[in-house]
Amino acid sequence: MDSITMETLLLRHLSTKMAQDIMRTLIRVTFGTEASQLSALYFLAFSNGTHGLLSQFSSSLNGARELRIKGGAQQIALELSVKIGKECIILNTPVTEIEQSENGVRVSTRFGKIYRSKYIIVALPPTEVHRILFNPSLSLKHRQLLQRYPVGHLTKFIITYPKAFWREKGFSGEVLSYGGGKVERGCDAGPISATYDATTHHGHPAIVGYMASKSGVQWNSKDTSCRKQSVLETLSYFWGDWVHDPIDYVEKNWGEEAYVGGCPTHGMSPGMMVWFHQIRTPFGRIYWAGTETATRWCGYMDGAVQAGERAALEVLYKFQPQTLTAADLDVIDLQVRRSSFIHPPPDPHIFRWTLCLPLFLIAMGWAAYTLRRHFWVIGVGRIA
Amino acid sequence: MDSITMETLLLRHLSTKMAQDIMRTLIRVTFGTEASQLSALYFLAFSNGTHGLLSQFSSSLNGARELRIKGGAQQIALELSVKIGKECIILNTPVTEIEQSENGVRVSTRFGKIYRSKYIIVALPPTEVHRILFNPSLSLKHRQLLQRYPVGHLTKFIITYPKAFWREKGFSGEVLSYGGGKVERGCDAGPISATYDATTHHGHPAIVGYMASKSGVQWNSKDTSCRKQSVLETLSYFWGDWVHDPIDYVEKNWGEEAYVGGCPTHGMSPGMMVWFHQIRTPFGRIYWAGTETATRWCGYMDGAVQAGERAALEVLYKFQPQTLTAADLDVIDLQVRRSSFIHPPPDPHIFRWTLCLPLFLIAMGWAAYTLRRHFWVIGVGRIA
Repeated sequence: MDSITMETLLLRHLSTKMAQDIMRTLIRVTFGTEASQLSALYFLAFSNGTHGLLSQFSSSLNGARELRIKGGAQQIALELSVKIGKECIILNTPVTEIEQSENGVRVSTRFGKIYRSKYIIVALPPTEVHRILFNPSLSLKHRQLLQRYPVGHLTKFIITYPKAFWREKGFSGEVLSYGGGKVERGCDAGPISATYDATTHHGHPAIVGYMASKSGVQWNSKDTSCRKQSVLETLSYFWGDWVHDPIDYVEKNWGEEAYVGGCPTHGMSPGMMVWFHQIRTPFGRIYWAGTETATRWCGYMDGAVQAGERAALEVLYKFQPQTLTAADLDVIDLQVRRSSFIHPPPDPHIFRWTLCLPLFLIAMGWAAYTLRRHFWVIGVGRIA
Repeated sequence: MDSITMETLLLRHLSTKMAQDIMRTLIRVTFGTEASQLSALYFLAFSNGTHGLLSQFSSSLNGARELRIKGGAQQIALELSVKIGKECIILNTPVTEIEQSENGVRVSTRFGKIYRSKYIIVALPPTEVHRILFNPSLSLKHRQLLQRYPVGHLTKFIITYPKAFWREKGFSGEVLSYGGGKVERGCDAGPISATYDATTHHGHPAIVGYMASKSGVQWNSKDTSCRKQSVLETLSYFWGDWVHDPIDYVEKNWGEEAYVGGCPTHGMSPGMMVWFHQIRTPFGRIYWAGTETATRWCGYMDGAVQAGERAALEVLYKFQPQTLTAADLDVIDLQVRRSSFIHPPPDPHIFRWTLCLPLFLIAMGWAAYTLRRHFWVIGVGRIA
């Protein structure tokens, strides 16, 4: 199953073009990737981690898009930074190199600063891990995997309106489109892959949508006003002319961020699933977090939390195993408990005793010899 | 065709398992990659560039392995370094960042040294290009492509013998094996994918062979003596007991090289061929060489030469287009002749004349006014 693409699987098992197109669109929105680029087995494993296809794409109960965060997702980062203490967070300092030895880890940054620690948790997307120089090199399996686990592309847009007109007309605000709508030169298809109702908890009406995968990359070469025009025209096919009068139109293209490179998640190329566990297998003193290392809701925020907790427990297991509960130990892979890539330093006790004990005995002997006369006097009395 | 893997194509069009296994082995040896990891269309394009399958795998006339270089392939680099002048070659200086502006290119290295030039030719494997930080970022298409163009894995071994026993027995020295031979724990199959006769031009008899792709990675976790033992036992199945007495056994694992990462070439994952030309499309002042950018014998040394010449001509076209012949111009892509990602600086002449001309006129006016009386005397005579 890992040797075929998701496209092959769709063609083999879905008999109508409409069913195929729906799946292709859902894959585009979920991975920012074409079905033709994705390992079929990876998709199935991914869907298994989200309790099936329906919850993966759904914005209703237990669905991937069920919950939104008051004030936006950045609230999590902001609240965490208060808890951790801003002085403990170093921003704008990209890591270029991670070296490890028997004693610890040494992290070099782009601007020459160096940090040291006993252990390190790397919570980066796989493509960014691949860009760091590791010394010693990561295992061959891990490096082969990182090369075949690329990130997709997604441009997100949010259109705000004075009123939620779509609700008044009886629409949910959800649109799935396989390239329908207004096409520009250089683009194979219309811009929109999907939209959702994104009305805020304050009640400000908004529509959020995605320009995903190849089509998104093509539209990326157009200027914003052209994209906006085409997005609105496409939406007007579905909802009518009112869409042309938004309050605001905002876009975010994650592909432009130098240290992110894409959105929303990574999708495995075919042929690597046999070594997929490498993504979270500790390498000496290096432990792995980040949503791509999760086993449940991998690629989502839920997965990021799971992975972060697991990685923290793994490191805690090395420091203070006695603090871990049985439930904690279950979270940690058995492999982790056994793993020790960096051989433990030779036991210092042996050295200490082989050197100190003879020295101590010699010192005692010398002291006994020197104080012999004195002892004699005090302890036994001297025979004159 | 780009949406299916080579494995899917083999299963679809080859009816016997033996034919499939032969193709799988040939793909392993050529790309260091499994058929399941490779885009079928990429494989066909690759084979088109090598004039078909037969020449791709063959060591006879016009074949990929027809020619060898006296004294080894490093002779090319050594001879070139003499021609170029060793003082012009900077070694052990990995590039970390390439910035370009309207005036030129700025290359930063790992140890803080900085180099500047008008244009730059990058002749690196795609995975290593991906590890460099570009400012401005490479085009989205190019970055998406680099992520899906991974390098394979190959461990090469050379066994030297006192005599070419295999020739005496009537063997060519060529073996293709789909995982036959002695298997160790942790390895799915035997070590050898292929061997060839590698007798030197001095007549020193030798066999060269490959442990390729997944199987090669698995064998990589064993120690050398274990691998050697298993390689020799596997070869003895084919050739008899004499193989157990070699003069020497040497290995090279390119996966261990921090700035190479694999061997022998890159193989495209499915779904990206539509943007394959991005690999050689200049980006402002950055031009691309390296065998993966070649259109003929891509992935081979022949391709590296073609790509190098093309890139050199492209840069020459920017400097001194009048020196290029019609044949040279044909080598350069039309796209290159038109490309100008970095907009030309605003014409300095406009600025110069809008400022200088009025100033010049004012100065002339003032001079005329001042010298009015003098002119009058000399030129016309003064009316007293």
